[in-house]
Amino acid sequence: GTTLLDRRSDKRIDSKWLSKKQNHPATVYILFSDLSPLVTLSGGAEKSQQPEVRLCRLHHKDVQQCMNQTEEVTLIFLGVDLQLHMSLLAAYNGKVLQEDDEDGLVAWFALSINPTSAERFKQKHEDCYFLHPPMPALLQLPENEAGVVAQARSILAWHSRYRFCPTCGSATKIEEGGYKKTCMKEDCPSLQGVHNTSYPRVDPVVIMQVIHPDGNHCLLGRQKRFPPGMFTCLAGFVEPGETIEDAVRREVEEEAGVKVGHVQYVSCQPWPMPSSLMIGCLAVAVSSEIRVDKNEIEDARWFTREQVVDVLIKGNQRSFFVPPSRAIAHQLIKHWIGMNA
Amino acid sequence: GTTLLDRRSDKRIDSKWLSKKQNHPATVYILFSDLSPLVTLSGGAEKSQQPEVRLCRLHHKDVQQCMNQTEEVTLIFLGVDLQLHMSLLAAYNGKVLQEDDEDGLVAWFALSINPTSAERFKQKHEDCYFLHPPMPALLQLPENEAGVVAQARSILAWHSRYRFCPTCGSATKIEEGGYKKTCMKEDCPSLQGVHNTSYPRVDPVVIMQVIHPDGNHCLLGRQKRFPPGMFTCLAGFVEPGETIEDAVRREVEEEAGVKVGHVQYVSCQPWPMPSSLMIGCLAVAVSSEIRVDKNEIEDARWFTREQVVDVLIKGNQRSFFVPPSRAIAHQLIKHWIGMNA
Ligand SMILES: Nc1ncnc2c1ncn2[C@@H]1O[C@H](COP(=O)(O)O)[C@@H](O)[C@H]1O
Ligand SMILES: Nc1ncnc2c1ncn2[C@@H]1O[C@H](COP(=O)(O)O)[C@@H](O)[C@H]1O
Repeated sequence: GTTLLDRRSDKRIDSKWLSKKQNHPATVYILFSDLSPLVTLSGGAEKSQQPEVRLCRLHHKDVQQCMNQTEEVTLIFLGVDLQLHMSLLAAYNGKVLQEDDEDGLVAWFALSINPTSAERFKQKHEDCYFLHPPMPALLQLPENEAGVVAQARSILAWHSRYRFCPTCGSATKIEEGGYKKTCMKEDCPSLQGVHNTSYPRVDPVVIMQVIHPDGNHCLLGRQKRFPPGMFTCLAGFVEPGETIEDAVRREVEEEAGVKVGHVQYVSCQPWPMPSSLMIGCLAVAVSSEIRVDKNEIEDARWFTREQVVDVLIKGNQRSFFVPPSRAIAHQLIKHWIGMNA
Repeated sequence: GTTLLDRRSDKRIDSKWLSKKQNHPATVYILFSDLSPLVTLSGGAEKSQQPEVRLCRLHHKDVQQCMNQTEEVTLIFLGVDLQLHMSLLAAYNGKVLQEDDEDGLVAWFALSINPTSAERFKQKHEDCYFLHPPMPALLQLPENEAGVVAQARSILAWHSRYRFCPTCGSATKIEEGGYKKTCMKEDCPSLQGVHNTSYPRVDPVVIMQVIHPDGNHCLLGRQKRFPPGMFTCLAGFVEPGETIEDAVRREVEEEAGVKVGHVQYVSCQPWPMPSSLMIGCLAVAVSSEIRVDKNEIEDARWFTREQVVDVLIKGNQRSFFVPPSRAIAHQLIKHWIGMNA
C-alpha cells in the first residue's frame, strides 16, 4: 500500500493519550528543520542498485534533548502506523507487551526544530542530513514516505506562516496535535463558531493534460525558472467560487490562449510546496492556435504523440523532457499516451 | 450556459482600467451586507409561476453614495459580462458607442457595505432585500447568479476574516481588484516571494455517495442541526497531504465506521460558506456495519434504491427527504439512481 499511517484524527483531542505516546519508546519521530525533513541514504535492495533516500525514523531518546530546548519547537501528531503494532515489536524483541502499552498503537510525530538544534543534531548523527532544497529532492522518497512528508510539511508550513490570528492580529496557540490554532485574545470573533482561520490551508490546484482537437497532440508548456528543455502540463490555482472544470478552462485560455471544452478528472496528488492539492485532469481543446501569456509562462507547444512516446517510453530526451515519474504531470502525460493507443 | 462572467484576471493589475470601469454607467454592481447579497423577487416567466429570487443589478449612480462613505467598503472586481457588450447596449438605446467605451466590456463588481449604509439603501429601494441567512436561500438563485455570488461571497468572507497578516500580525491592504492582500509592514517575510497568505482560501471538501457492497443501498447521514427528516451524503474537509480518494475513505470510516474501496470523482460545486469547493464522489463500500461517531453526526443509515427513488423522483417525502436539486448532494444521489437502473 502507499499509505503508511492512519491519521486517527479522534486522538488529536486526547491530550493524555498524545503525551503518553510522545514519551513512549516505540513512537516514531521524523525531524524537520526549515521545512526540510531529515533523511538518510540506505543501500538499494541489491548491491548494484542506487542508494535510496529514506526518512530517518527517530525515537524519543533521540529527540528528547531537542524537545527540552527552551527555543521554539513544533510538534505534530501524524497518526498511527498501519503496519507496525507493538505486539509485533515485542515479539520481535522477545518481550511481552507492557501493561501501559495498552492499545499497542505505534504513533508518529513530526518535530520541527530550530537551526541551532538542527546543527547540533547533525553533528551527532553523521549519516543523516536535511533534504534541502525540498524540490525536486522530495520526489526521490518512497511514495509512502512522501505522503507522510506532504502531511507534515504542509502543517509545519502553515504554523510557520500563520503565527498570528488573521482576524484580529493577536498571537495564537497550537492545539489538537497541531491541527488547530486558536487566537489568544479573549473576545476575538474567531473564537465564536467554527472558522477556517483555525485550520490548516489546502490550496486546490488544477493541472491538465490538454489534448489537441485532432486527438494526436498534447499541449505542454514551460516556465522561465524550469531547467532548460523541460516541458510539463499547464497548471494553476482554483479560485473562489470556481469549479475544477472552469478553473481548467480559464487557466488554459489565460496561459496559452487555447479554448477547452470537455474536462475529465484523472487523479490527484498532494504537493507540499507549501500546501497544494494538485487535481489532475484531461482537457480536450476546441481550438488550436497558441497565444502564450509571457507573464505566466515562457513557452507552450503542441507535441505529437510520437514525440511524447519517444521521451516518456523510449527515454530519448534529446528534444525535451518531462518531470520524473513520481510527479502527477508525468502520470497525466502517461495516462494520455495509454489512451486510444 | 451556467457561466455569467469571464473573470479576466489579467485586468486585476490594471488599476487604470479598473477605476475607469468603476465609474462607467454600464458597469454592474452587486451589493452585499454582512456577506448577504441584495436580491429582489421577479415574476416567473409565466403569470402562474412562483416569483423568482434574483440578484439586484445596480449601477454606478445607485451605489455612488455608499462608495463615498468614509466608513469601510470593500470592492471586488468579478469579471466582464459574457453576454452583454456595450455595442449591444448602445444599439438597444439607439446610440452609438462612445470613444471612451473602448473595449466595450461590461464589468461587474461586488460591493460590500456596512449595516448603516445597508439600512439607508433598503429604505430607498423597497423592492430589494438582503438574502439572510444565506443558506438555504442561496440555493433559490438561478445557477449562473449563484456562481457569481459564490465568487463574491468567498472573497468578501476572506477579507472580513483575514484583516491582519498571519505572518506578522500587522494590518494589510487590499490589491489586485480584491484578489490579493499585502502586509503593510515593510520587512514582513510575507513580502519576500509568493505566499498563500496573500491569496484567498479555497477549502476543498469531499462529499460522497457511498454505495453498499450489494450495489442496491446507499449510505446517508444527518447532523443534529439539520431540519428533522433530512438525510444527505457524508462530507468532510480534505486534510493537508491527503488525496481526494483518501479523504473520502477517512471521512466515511470516521463518521460511520464503514470501509470504502473504490472512489470515483463525479462533479464539484463551489460552496461559499465561506469558501469551500465541494468535490463530489461515488464511493463503493467494502463493509456494511455502521458505527456512528456521535461527535460528528447524529445518524447514518443504509437506504434502499427504492426508498431513494420514492423520495427523489416520486416526490414522496413521508419517510425522509434530501437537499434541494441545486445542492451537489442531490445531484450525487440522483447520479447513483441513474446508474445501473
Ligand atoms: N477549513 C476548515 N474550516 C472549518 N472547519 C474545518 C476546516 N478544516 C477542518 N475543519 C474541521 O471541520 C469541523 C467543522 O466541520 P463542520 O461541522 O462540517 O462545519 C471543525 O471542527 C474542524 O475540525
Ligand atoms: N494560494 C496561492 N498561493 C500562491 N499563489 C497563488 C495562490 N492563489 C493564487 N495564486 C497566484 O499564483 C501565482 C503564483 O503562481 P506560481 O508562479 O505557479 O507559484 C501568484 O502570482 C498568484 O497570482
